Amino acid sequence: MTTLNVADHMHALGAQAKVASAQMAKASAAVKNTALRKLAALLRDNIAALQIDNAKDIERAIAAGLDAPMVDRLKLTPKVLETCAQGCEQLAAMPEVIGEITGLKEQPSGIRVGQMRVPLGVFGMIFESRPNVTIEAASLSIKSGNACILRGGSEAIESNKALAKLVQQALSESGLPTDAVQLVQTTDREAVGHLIAMPEFVDVIIPRGGKGLIERISRDAKVPVIKHLDGNCHTYVDDPCDIAMAVTVADNAKTQKYSPCNASESLLVARGVAAEFLPKIGAIFAAKGVEMRCSPEAKTILTQVKGANLKDATEQDWFEEYLGPIISIKVVEGLDEAIAHINHYSSHHTESILTRDHMHAQRFLREVDSSSVMVNASTRFADGFEYGLGAEIGISTDKFHARGPVGIEGLTSLKYVVLGQGEIRT
Amino acid sequence: MTTLNVADHMHALGAQAKVASAQMAKASAAVKNTALRKLAALLRDNIAALQIDNAKDIERAIAAGLDAPMVDRLKLTPKVLETCAQGCEQLAAMPEVIGEITGLKEQPSGIRVGQMRVPLGVFGMIFESRPNVTIEAASLSIKSGNACILRGGSEAIESNKALAKLVQQALSESGLPTDAVQLVQTTDREAVGHLIAMPEFVDVIIPRGGKGLIERISRDAKVPVIKHLDGNCHTYVDDPCDIAMAVTVADNAKTQKYSPCNASESLLVARGVAAEFLPKIGAIFAAKGVEMRCSPEAKTILTQVKGANLKDATEQDWFEEYLGPIISIKVVEGLDEAIAHINHYSSHHTESILTRDHMHAQRFLREVDSSSVMVNASTRFADGFEYGLGAEIGISTDKFHARGPVGIEGLTSLKYVVLGQGEIRT
Repeated sequence: MTTLNVADHMHALGAQAKVASAQMAKASAAVKNTALRKLAALLRDNIAALQIDNAKDIERAIAAGLDAPMVDRLKLTPKVLETCAQGCEQLAAMPEVIGEITGLKEQPSGIRVGQMRVPLGVFGMIFESRPNVTIEAASLSIKSGNACILRGGSEAIESNKALAKLVQQALSESGLPTDAVQLVQTTDREAVGHLIAMPEFVDVIIPRGGKGLIERISRDAKVPVIKHLDGNCHTYVDDPCDIAMAVTVADNAKTQKYSPCNASESLLVARGVAAEFLPKIGAIFAAKGVEMRCSPEAKTILTQVKGANLKDATEQDWFEEYLGPIISIKVVEGLDEAIAHINHYSSHHTESILTRDHMHAQRFLREVDSSSVMVNASTRFADGFEYGLGAEIGISTDKFHARGPVGIEGLTSLKYVVLGQGEIRT
Repeated sequence: MTTLNVADHMHALGAQAKVASAQMAKASAAVKNTALRKLAALLRDNIAALQIDNAKDIERAIAAGLDAPMVDRLKLTPKVLETCAQGCEQLAAMPEVIGEITGLKEQPSGIRVGQMRVPLGVFGMIFESRPNVTIEAASLSIKSGNACILRGGSEAIESNKALAKLVQQALSESGLPTDAVQLVQTTDREAVGHLIAMPEFVDVIIPRGGKGLIERISRDAKVPVIKHLDGNCHTYVDDPCDIAMAVTVADNAKTQKYSPCNASESLLVARGVAAEFLPKIGAIFAAKGVEMRCSPEAKTILTQVKGANLKDATEQDWFEEYLGPIISIKVVEGLDEAIAHINHYSSHHTESILTRDHMHAQRFLREVDSSSVMVNASTRFADGFEYGLGAEIGISTDKFHARGPVGIEGLTSLKYVVLGQGEIRT
């Protein structure tokens, strides 16, 4: 496409989404849920056809020399599609949030004032590789009564187009506007620049991808961005704590999976339990090949662990999100130092205290300034599904609007409703 | 101050506010309420002293040739100060919102997940003329556990400095950090540029003032802005409606006060009641000297009104916020056209339907995309105090984060809390 065409295409998508959003906002729960169940059925009915389109992306990816994990993430296997279908059905089964009126109270003037939950309007979603995000975003958009414009990665364009067609078929067969879910049809990078700069059509942008992409979008966007940057998550082993439990949870938080943003990257240990706790977790990390970047005190204790890969932590290590088999470890005096360390070095994503002390737990929950704060649980739980949100469009590391895993409610807003009987201001 | 000094001053304010915000976030409700009541007492004890400082601003304003209404808005009369003191006491009496945990539910994994209300952190407030905003902002900031940096208008600098000193005294005597409420000490315009571009220290900016100021700040800010632009509010007189009530409410919505943003600027009238309703409201507007800018059909009906000042409405009139004795009037077919007109021309602030039809009322509430939607009430009620918020830091015409009048909750965020007993992800 020429420059003009991309601009025209994006403008058209924006204008159409805006119109569709008004229809979606007043759509009934029954109709939206019908569309979601139709979409689930269409995904199951079209497994073979979808795999033909998906194969085009896979072939191109292999020809382009993408590595095996990247190619794997592109695949629309029957299992992936079944998971997508089930996700749609789960959303359909969830209670309706749009139109709910809360807090309706009579005021001294006689008017009754409450708040109604309404859709945000139009969101733009920018994502990379995994084509099933098309279905996740589309289904959340339908359930929340929004319209959306989806911009997937160029490597998955054929798969995304095929999936988006099924979404539009489900919308159309349910009496909803097909423009409620639109896929950007060009892989031209310029399209993103337009999508994030149409405040007249788009209410919010949700980018999912690498930190570089998200920083670039946040900097250039002319509308609000629900953004997820680093996940430098901490596990703090308190004194007193159940050492066996602490070992199990700290191990899980780091090693159950290295790549997710909610994996713990830093382990803080209270001095009072360090001599008992560190050799135990150190032996597990050594056995799993996890490199330990230690404060001097932690290193002194961990040298007794056979086969431990120990390094001295630099100042930068306390900020680092490794997303791999590396962890930074520090011995701290106790709760105060742990909270101060976390609030200074953390990316404000997810932190967990492992403790038996109720007062410490309460203070940790209140004073740690992160989107998820946990007591005696693995940081790996920070996830929309685990939190019972039904689905997750992303995780916000901002405080404004939505914080933490973003589900249906994060795509909504509250407007005031006032019910009177002819009251006037005097 | 030289350029360097303004930058240094603002950087220092930001860094100090950030430190103070952590202390405010963990301050107990009792301590915050003590500070608010101390502030109320200090305002009452210092009426004479405050008026001496206020007189300096008044003299300067008169010497500069400011008009009488502008000078009036600067005045810290005993009555204004008493209202400020009462506002602080009312906030102190309100329930605590910080630390509240809602929705704590057990998930299939065994963890319990809920959300805790926490302060946003640091907000910057930019306002013009009325110095009592210093107390309104400071008291809301204290109650909500935030820290704030206040930038008042240069015309009120002496009054603002005197008020800010009392706020800091109240904080200090209650054991709270004085940096929790800081006033920008320079009137240099450059200070605003720094305040809105310190994402490392400031979480949100709240501008209050003319549309030009707010547009400039929104464009240049590097942090989120809670903004209030136009108030092109509509009153729609439906068919069927109680004509006498509709006349009273429509009159109040327009003429009770012309300058507020929640005054109605546009009157839509269903065709079925236009012949009966319009001459009645037209006579009142004519008597009060309100100019009527009419659609052709409205004008035809209103020509029978003696002394009516009728003009033909232009396309631009439907967008206009007059803030004066002018109103645009249109006859519409009915509810559908009214909703379509409002959603197209409104600034999404406040709209009211005057009706007896329950289905119409329900549809209006659901389908009109504005921050406040009303049934049978004057648009003039769109206000934090009237809504029972206790206080209002501003009104948001955005959908993101806060929408409509912004009180304590608009200055807070929700973080996830997870309570476990050693659960791990499998």
